[in-house]
Amino acid sequence: MIKKVSHIGIAVNSIDEALKLYTGALGLKLKGIEVVPDQKVRVAIIPVGNARIELLESTDPEGPIAKHIKNRGEGLHHVALEVEGIEGMLEALEKKEVPLVDRKPRIGAEGARIAFLHPKATKALVELLEPAE
Amino acid sequence: MIKKVSHIGIAVNSIDEALKLYTGALGLKLKGIEVVPDQKVRVAIIPVGNARIELLESTDPEGPIAKHIKNRGEGLHHVALEVEGIEGMLEALEKKEVPLVDRKPRIGAEGARIAFLHPKATKALVELLEPAE
Repeated sequence: MIKKVSHIGIAVNSIDEALKLYTGALGLKLKGIEVVPDQKVRVAIIPVGNARIELLESTDPEGPIAKHIKNRGEGLHHVALEVEGIEGMLEALEKKEVPLVDRKPRIGAEGARIAFLHPKATKALVELLEPAE
Repeated sequence: MIKKVSHIGIAVNSIDEALKLYTGALGLKLKGIEVVPDQKVRVAIIPVGNARIELLESTDPEGPIAKHIKNRGEGLHHVALEVEGIEGMLEALEKKEVPLVDRKPRIGAEGARIAFLHPKATKALVELLEPAE
């Protein structure tokens, strides 16, 4: 079950540079910065109401964010939807032949279980996310 | 003042095609479809928790969404933040020399006043949106 928008991920070359706008000029608050080794990325978490913006800076020139920026420049990378029962949802989507990047959840920032749907059907990179308990 | 994430805009070739995933496989509900002549776009509004996904289909081959798809393919187009006092915010941002696409609000879907910030500072297309009263 989809509950809400969890976050919007923005691929940036430099978190420090992007924060000038988000926490500087716009006055949003930085909750923290976390490294997610599995995705080769540093994540700056910026709460906005009950969702958040995540600024994504690659820690590796071969990582997915570095490749995204190389191909498309800085910009919106994915939208994450908070769900309940991620394993069951992925199974149900697979039965409906929805193309998936991840058939099983892996671990994202703050220990959440996450899985990406394939943009072929979603037209954009969409992540399902179930927060850690 | 920024209140919350209002919506995420996704540029698509065909709303009908994209709805197969969003309202079909994912089971989200379509609130409605609206044409916004100023932006040469049809907008399918899909509530997700207290934010929404907006599927954006161009009504004109020279419109901004058609151009975006031509240059970058289908995908995430912008994130909109709901604000209070949009005129004052735009004035304050201009004083801070934040690059703006719109110095004054214009009218978007459902009569909201909207203005885009320039991606030079935001690294992604960010819209400020104040709902109609």
